[in-house]
Amino acid sequence: MMDFSKLKPARDVAIVGIGSTEFGEHWNKSLRELAGEAGSKALHDAKIDPEEIQLLVGGNMSGGMFVGQEHGAGLFADYLGINPKPSMRTEAACASGSVAARVGFMAVASGMYDVVAVGGAEKMTDVSGETATSVLAGAMDQENEAFHGLTFPGVYAFLANRHMHEYGTTREQIAMIPVKNHKNGSLNPIAHFKNKITVADVLGSALVSDPLRLLDCSPISDGAASIIMVPAEKAKDYSDNPIYIRASAQASDSLTVHDRRDITTLDATVWAAKEAYQRSGLTPKDINFAEVHDCFSINELIAYEDLGFAKKGEGGKLIESGDVEIGGRIPINTSGGLKAKGHPVGATGIAQLYELVEQLRGEAGKRQVDNARYGLAHNVGGSGATVVVHILSNER
Amino acid sequence: MMDFSKLKPARDVAIVGIGSTEFGEHWNKSLRELAGEAGSKALHDAKIDPEEIQLLVGGNMSGGMFVGQEHGAGLFADYLGINPKPSMRTEAACASGSVAARVGFMAVASGMYDVVAVGGAEKMTDVSGETATSVLAGAMDQENEAFHGLTFPGVYAFLANRHMHEYGTTREQIAMIPVKNHKNGSLNPIAHFKNKITVADVLGSALVSDPLRLLDCSPISDGAASIIMVPAEKAKDYSDNPIYIRASAQASDSLTVHDRRDITTLDATVWAAKEAYQRSGLTPKDINFAEVHDCFSINELIAYEDLGFAKKGEGGKLIESGDVEIGGRIPINTSGGLKAKGHPVGATGIAQLYELVEQLRGEAGKRQVDNARYGLAHNVGGSGATVVVHILSNER
Repeated sequence: MMDFSKLKPARDVAIVGIGSTEFGEHWNKSLRELAGEAGSKALHDAKIDPEEIQLLVGGNMSGGMFVGQEHGAGLFADYLGINPKPSMRTEAACASGSVAARVGFMAVASGMYDVVAVGGAEKMTDVSGETATSVLAGAMDQENEAFHGLTFPGVYAFLANRHMHEYGTTREQIAMIPVKNHKNGSLNPIAHFKNKITVADVLGSALVSDPLRLLDCSPISDGAASIIMVPAEKAKDYSDNPIYIRASAQASDSLTVHDRRDITTLDATVWAAKEAYQRSGLTPKDINFAEVHDCFSINELIAYEDLGFAKKGEGGKLIESGDVEIGGRIPINTSGGLKAKGHPVGATGIAQLYELVEQLRGEAGKRQVDNARYGLAHNVGGSGATVVVHILSNER
Repeated sequence: MMDFSKLKPARDVAIVGIGSTEFGEHWNKSLRELAGEAGSKALHDAKIDPEEIQLLVGGNMSGGMFVGQEHGAGLFADYLGINPKPSMRTEAACASGSVAARVGFMAVASGMYDVVAVGGAEKMTDVSGETATSVLAGAMDQENEAFHGLTFPGVYAFLANRHMHEYGTTREQIAMIPVKNHKNGSLNPIAHFKNKITVADVLGSALVSDPLRLLDCSPISDGAASIIMVPAEKAKDYSDNPIYIRASAQASDSLTVHDRRDITTLDATVWAAKEAYQRSGLTPKDINFAEVHDCFSINELIAYEDLGFAKKGEGGKLIESGDVEIGGRIPINTSGGLKAKGHPVGATGIAQLYELVEQLRGEAGKRQVDNARYGLAHNVGGSGATVVVHILSNER
């Protein structure tokens, strides 16, 4: 474990604007239009003009394979009217958005830029479901996994089976996670799915990769989200309710699952969380609510344990306890999560921060968490090769 | 024009290690093997172990479309043994490598990381030339340019024709650029092409897009390059001859050429260069040598003017004068440039910095520039939508 006390950012960073499209199947909007809509909303929220932006960082997993468009950040900057300011795309599979946030954070912390727009966007529905599955497999080890026919539902089915075997986690406990997330999504105006579902619905849905069924799986979505970052000391110039980034942390593990120490845990989550807690001086008990990466139901359950919200093997008990519901001890995925809010992969990391900011501002409406002070976002790339953890607070 | 005097990096940054594969057609090496080879060489050059690396930033334009592999930085970090340290990929088309360098620079400048590995890699020869052309077209505006059949040779042919029309630049002057670059490449052990060519060879080569011919065009190459960055104040702990990054600058223009003010200049080059000169306190006259983005011959000629090495319209005279040859007033593309050294697109920006470091260390052998003190690297994404300019020096 590195000693992060010697690696302090030169400046603290705050978020002073947020914007998001609705997530869903946007047949009538292109990648640039989605990014432009989210970016415009964030600029409007921060009450600034495009000319004030000094750098744009755009997370996008695979504009190349989804819509034949690389150079995505350049496209977004162009469409948003940010030229001649610089732009760059970041990519770390489904953690592409969070990695963009980390670059934005470093850009402001470094002193090189004062006003940075960070976004994430993905347009996934222009290709067939089969092609999308193949594109997403580019997030795993192509030569050692994808080439041999492994898909992401298959990878996470390994994790689910092993977790059930090791810890007695039940199929019903796992099914309670999408049920909760759909309930939360029904309260979120930008969610892809706003319908409630039951445990019976999950267990009766089509088998995708045993034991995972259709309603365990996050959908293929289109969408974009954006945030505006400035130095913390200047945040009050831009916003009456700035939200401070208390930690931006990240860790890596092998791209292939077969190289892992243990597949019932994502070690990169454990490491990134430790870094985030060390950098922020907080513990899991201090966190009031979190957005976690429920690409598949089992991954939210594992995240409870790896983030320190439950002991190892007791994720199933936590979902049963009701503590992770809105109104519970530590509400998880108040937005609806990847399952119900949707999972336009490059946008997801930023969309998580969007939800944290709404909650910390007290603007989450029917989803509002009482006394929200510290929120955590957990974003996974691949099957856990990349994990980013951010901790945000409404107190500096 | 922004005032960059108020946007100073909190820490200066130095390069203490470099590594590169030979550029060429590596039928027997995969993307990860190329990146691993360059990274290992940079670690060896810096005399550090992989465990000392705290962050890896990897530039790659289109692992997705070239080899079905997104999440490239995760793959490189895994293969290099850098886990559990974080990694991220950057992309800005053919400027992906330079953008990676900018993220590495900000990571160190911010104080968040002390030892950062930055790399660039591309594996382009696993697909046909036709497919590669189509993948590269993802760097332009897919919907407004590529979809209609425009390719990069076509775009740069527009620029060449217009420059010849406006300024009387001759076909022969343009041809002198690849001739010079092949001559330099013949002295570079890692160059893709080590053969010398003549103006007659260029003018007699196959027409690609009038007036550009085959020998005006940089090749499709495989390759990777890597550099190790640390804070300038710690550089002497790692290296007897650290090289300092005096400016890291970037600007953007429209993705489409039809939206440009003037196609005989890349405005983003002009802006990025102005920023680099302002951040470093230098002028074009202070620069001793440069690596510039000769993806097509005409682009090097335009870069002479846009970077301030020649007056507007006088790039043709500069190449005729001999001043840009090794031994001349301001040698350009001593490495052989993209044309002769090769252009594995994601690697190119880092490969340019590699050449600058070799020159500034005095280790460039037969290509050595006398009294090299300030070197400039100019890396273009697309047809000039993204331009990055770095200035390096062996003096802090």
